[in-house]
Amino acid sequence: MPPARKSGEFERIRWIRDRTEGGPRIAVGPGDDCAVLRPRPGEEWVWTIDDLVEDVHFREGWIAPREIGRKSVEISLSDIAAMGARPIAILAAAEIPSTYPERSFRALCDGIRDAVRSAGAALAGGNLARSTGPLAITTTALGTVARGRAILRSGARPGDEIWMTGDPGGAALGLAAIERWGRRRAPRAFRPPIDRLVRPRARIREALWLARLPLHAMIDTSDGLLADLGHILEESGAGAALDLPPPDPRFRALAARAGRDALDLMLSGGEDYDLVLCAPPGAIEPMRPRFERRFGIQLRRIGRITRRSGIRARIDGRPLRTLPRGFDHFA
Amino acid sequence: MPPARKSGEFERIRWIRDRTEGGPRIAVGPGDDCAVLRPRPGEEWVWTIDDLVEDVHFREGWIAPREIGRKSVEISLSDIAAMGARPIAILAAAEIPSTYPERSFRALCDGIRDAVRSAGAALAGGNLARSTGPLAITTTALGTVARGRAILRSGARPGDEIWMTGDPGGAALGLAAIERWGRRRAPRAFRPPIDRLVRPRARIREALWLARLPLHAMIDTSDGLLADLGHILEESGAGAALDLPPPDPRFRALAARAGRDALDLMLSGGEDYDLVLCAPPGAIEPMRPRFERRFGIQLRRIGRITRRSGIRARIDGRPLRTLPRGFDHFA
Repeated sequence: MPPARKSGEFERIRWIRDRTEGGPRIAVGPGDDCAVLRPRPGEEWVWTIDDLVEDVHFREGWIAPREIGRKSVEISLSDIAAMGARPIAILAAAEIPSTYPERSFRALCDGIRDAVRSAGAALAGGNLARSTGPLAITTTALGTVARGRAILRSGARPGDEIWMTGDPGGAALGLAAIERWGRRRAPRAFRPPIDRLVRPRARIREALWLARLPLHAMIDTSDGLLADLGHILEESGAGAALDLPPPDPRFRALAARAGRDALDLMLSGGEDYDLVLCAPPGAIEPMRPRFERRFGIQLRRIGRITRRSGIRARIDGRPLRTLPRGFDHFA
Repeated sequence: MPPARKSGEFERIRWIRDRTEGGPRIAVGPGDDCAVLRPRPGEEWVWTIDDLVEDVHFREGWIAPREIGRKSVEISLSDIAAMGARPIAILAAAEIPSTYPERSFRALCDGIRDAVRSAGAALAGGNLARSTGPLAITTTALGTVARGRAILRSGARPGDEIWMTGDPGGAALGLAAIERWGRRRAPRAFRPPIDRLVRPRARIREALWLARLPLHAMIDTSDGLLADLGHILEESGAGAALDLPPPDPRFRALAARAGRDALDLMLSGGEDYDLVLCAPPGAIEPMRPRFERRFGIQLRRIGRITRRSGIRARIDGRPLRTLPRGFDHFA
């Protein structure tokens, strides 16, 4: 355990650094002006940045500092995964209120380290600043992929099948439960959805596995199923006809208990960090059972890409008239 | 001019994207999950992240939105410069209060674009989030340098000369003037130091020019001359004997007028974004006149690296008893 007293910026940086493993690609890690990375011929690097801001993405009491640290990294890793890339390095910038306890700060760093480690990546550096407002963590991640093999949003073609991993709406159900009862008082049945919200895991291994198939487009679901599919459609200049299963009865019951509509959570609930992908007809189905066995999550065909723009959806075979929208920070 | 009404996140992103040039190294720019970069054999990439947080690094009224955007990029570019690297790409993450005017948001984006452009780099993407607290911008930059040629903090050796570009303390003097009179009411004579604070320019061209010389270590002065030199000393396991000129009489007079000690500003004033470098004896002096002519700023020898740790300083030949410390966010 590190000493629990308040420490200065440089002391904090040293503390973080002492606890940071390098990686074979990291020529220079934390402690210099920049991290130095070693690319190889034939590779591309993918690179992303994402924020986790108190009172916007989370509230104190909902989520432990270690979970905040972990999630701040997972959200960037999820973007790397959505490219079909392998994460190699992370930088993290933290804006810390001056009243933030030292113990919490260190737990937060441990969370960052947990996520970086379990992804097989390296923490290559970062920045610490004071904040007079909310706690905020920005992370940026670099990943590597064979040249020309990054899976973009723009590659979906009419006729492609649309598939998704996991069960949409879980994180939003967790959020609904926390908003209703608070994290500690939420009924036991809500623990799994709450876990999805506070301990998301980027689908890195799943995405690398899927990336060997002839995918045309992929995205992670951070804004919600419809909103993120919408990003693919906009970039690909296409539309989609969705044919969704009805919400699972257990999910529907939990949603009702939390005072929410199951379908709305499914279609527009954000922060699932699952994958939506487009592939030529017949390319995924033969591999589906192996995927589901290997990763213990569902891989479901949810529709197809159409030439006609917009999203048309059927639930359990019945057309849906009005579609809810995904999360938009500034709407 | 873009429409002045409030716009949604995706509309904002599209607006930014429409105004973003690509670059030869950017295979995929803004609008996908990640930017895709094209490294070449024999190169290294340097990568940094930095924050600019309202009420910590700036206050509204001190600095225009466009200047905030510009500075948020320059501070990361300055880290790239300090490695002797050439910037290639930037990602920017903005946490925007929901009350922040659309016009200011767009000016801020223009400032980001100005800085990226004038550095010959590309804006490769970013993230937008709402904030319930202060405006904050985090930028991360990647730069390229020939393999093994990145100039680290750790390479200074006893006997090396210590040099610095420009005049230390300018930005801190500007801050003192703003704190005393406000930006608009500050006497005209303080405009140049205020400009240094609100419109810093990363010393990219200067650093690339200097990097052709046999430098052992380099850093940019963001925390203050002594603090940043201290980082070099710590990383290099060495000390320094400084022999500094007395403060320029004009600088001293302005400092006094702003109620500050000139020497204190010079030694510990932050945010100059100048360069401190270490090189073998005699390596810099022959090139100094060309540097000064070319860039219109001074290049001064300010001391030497010692085996004995710590910093000893003489000002105008007289030993300085107590050394002020640089800026520490959490001290």
